[in-house]
Amino acid sequence: MVAAKDPSVFFLIFGDENQVFPLAQEFGLKQDRFKVHHTTQVVKGDDKPSAAVRSGRESSMWKAIMSVRNGYSKAVVSAGNTGALMAMSKICLGTLSGIDRPAIAGILPSLTGPIVALDLGANAECNSQNLVEFAVMGHVLYHVLFDEASPSVGLLNIGSEETKGREEIREASAVLKSFDAKINFKGFVEGNDICLGTARVIVTDGFSGNVALKTIEGTAKFITSSLKNTVSDSLMAKIGFLLASGALKKLKKKMDPRTYNGAMFLGLNGISVKSHGGADAYSFACAVEAAIRMARNELCSKIKAELGRLMDVPPVLPEEAADA
Amino acid sequence: MVAAKDPSVFFLIFGDENQVFPLAQEFGLKQDRFKVHHTTQVVKGDDKPSAAVRSGRESSMWKAIMSVRNGYSKAVVSAGNTGALMAMSKICLGTLSGIDRPAIAGILPSLTGPIVALDLGANAECNSQNLVEFAVMGHVLYHVLFDEASPSVGLLNIGSEETKGREEIREASAVLKSFDAKINFKGFVEGNDICLGTARVIVTDGFSGNVALKTIEGTAKFITSSLKNTVSDSLMAKIGFLLASGALKKLKKKMDPRTYNGAMFLGLNGISVKSHGGADAYSFACAVEAAIRMARNELCSKIKAELGRLMDVPPVLPEEAADA
Repeated sequence: MVAAKDPSVFFLIFGDENQVFPLAQEFGLKQDRFKVHHTTQVVKGDDKPSAAVRSGRESSMWKAIMSVRNGYSKAVVSAGNTGALMAMSKICLGTLSGIDRPAIAGILPSLTGPIVALDLGANAECNSQNLVEFAVMGHVLYHVLFDEASPSVGLLNIGSEETKGREEIREASAVLKSFDAKINFKGFVEGNDICLGTARVIVTDGFSGNVALKTIEGTAKFITSSLKNTVSDSLMAKIGFLLASGALKKLKKKMDPRTYNGAMFLGLNGISVKSHGGADAYSFACAVEAAIRMARNELCSKIKAELGRLMDVPPVLPEEAADA
Repeated sequence: MVAAKDPSVFFLIFGDENQVFPLAQEFGLKQDRFKVHHTTQVVKGDDKPSAAVRSGRESSMWKAIMSVRNGYSKAVVSAGNTGALMAMSKICLGTLSGIDRPAIAGILPSLTGPIVALDLGANAECNSQNLVEFAVMGHVLYHVLFDEASPSVGLLNIGSEETKGREEIREASAVLKSFDAKINFKGFVEGNDICLGTARVIVTDGFSGNVALKTIEGTAKFITSSLKNTVSDSLMAKIGFLLASGALKKLKKKMDPRTYNGAMFLGLNGISVKSHGGADAYSFACAVEAAIRMARNELCSKIKAELGRLMDVPPVLPEEAADA
């Protein structure tokens, strides 16, 4: 799918060649567009990240990430164990200088178009510095993905007044305001602002971000299920929905969660994207496309440059940067 | 509305009688069903809670809460300033013995019927003890509102495994498990479980609870707005929705946020309910009905009894005389 659209992309596929080759054929991926690195060790879905890191050095996941580290590929995309992928990516790629904790970012649909939200679950607890770094990374990611120079950034809180919420959030807000117009900081936003698309980038800790993400999923499922039940209870409604089916299909496509597949690990020295485990071909292709845009637009270098511009992080000396 | 349904309820209305009397007439509230306590001081929407408490002792809000403390009424319902109502309720009514921090609870619709969620914003940070107390209060509230003896209680987290999330949540889970079957504790639930109705009571800190609540509102608004836009773009869809309008109205009624109006302050020596500021008559009546159910079923005494049964809190202390 991606291959058909973009002939300049070459794929390194890590896995059992006996399974990969037939699949490549099934999906029409031509032989000159990919190479298989045969591996048989597998990180399972329920493996503990620590165990996977210790004993998974021959796995397809480890080897794929190492190919990014060694410069053989520009980005890794995996639909495997999230915790293991995050842990291995951290170890193999290393954290960017100036970043204390990497975060998981995602793209979400909203009333005003796609938005970026982070952290979606990597860090259950965050300090103000973490939140500021997430804001900078989110701002760069949005720019790289959607070509908008100065996307608005909102900090998730439980009220718009200065005095509301947790201390670390108020501190982060003060730092982001001190950047002046260098970053388009909108101030505090609330849970409803996520889907209303009030800001292009939503910054929060990994606990609240994960709760919000899953709450959106649950609410959407609740509304669509209730709608289906209501319609199936009434013949008139059934006929009505049949007439509206063309328009509804368009809406379904616009909101299709598959389009928004791909959790992006930010703050690493390399690009690592996690696809949903149950992704189909279209959905996985969307995650691959996000990874390609991130690589082509040199996300990591741009994050480093922005950290330098906004926070005086020295671009090359990691030990010093950690204290900046 | 409530008055019409339930002739045994008598209303004490605190406010400017020049405004109250014409409104009572407009809504058909008969003279023998209510009494007006004339007050002219008003707590404004943007007053700071601390300032309201200091200088608002002649306000309708303060006097209404004091009527509960002094036993003239069984519950107070206000559509005014949330922070001021919470602060005044805490001071006037006092906190129940055995409760460290009062919480705000709300009723939400879900795929399996109404659920109760708390804390929705009173405490941005909570320790494990707070969460355990919220669980006990939520369990009693659900029982009192919906007459279900042993409602399932879930603790909001970002994964279902034992090792996931913040330390205070894991600790709270261990305590709730130690209660054995005395409370129907389901373990961890996630954001999607709220609207899917996996548990009857959702327990979380006030930050995550507020984020989740507002995320549900935003998601619902996003989906319904998108649906409206889609339909208005297509004539066929318009006709279709016209045919389905009867069924859709039923659905709208089922999900009507007005039905779920009323944020309940739990953990106080008395019943205090906050109505949405923009509530219409129907919506306000729903909040009043919840307050009546809470008072009739002796919520505060039942919470005290449950705390005693589960956590060895001494059941009666002289200071608690004000409890309804």
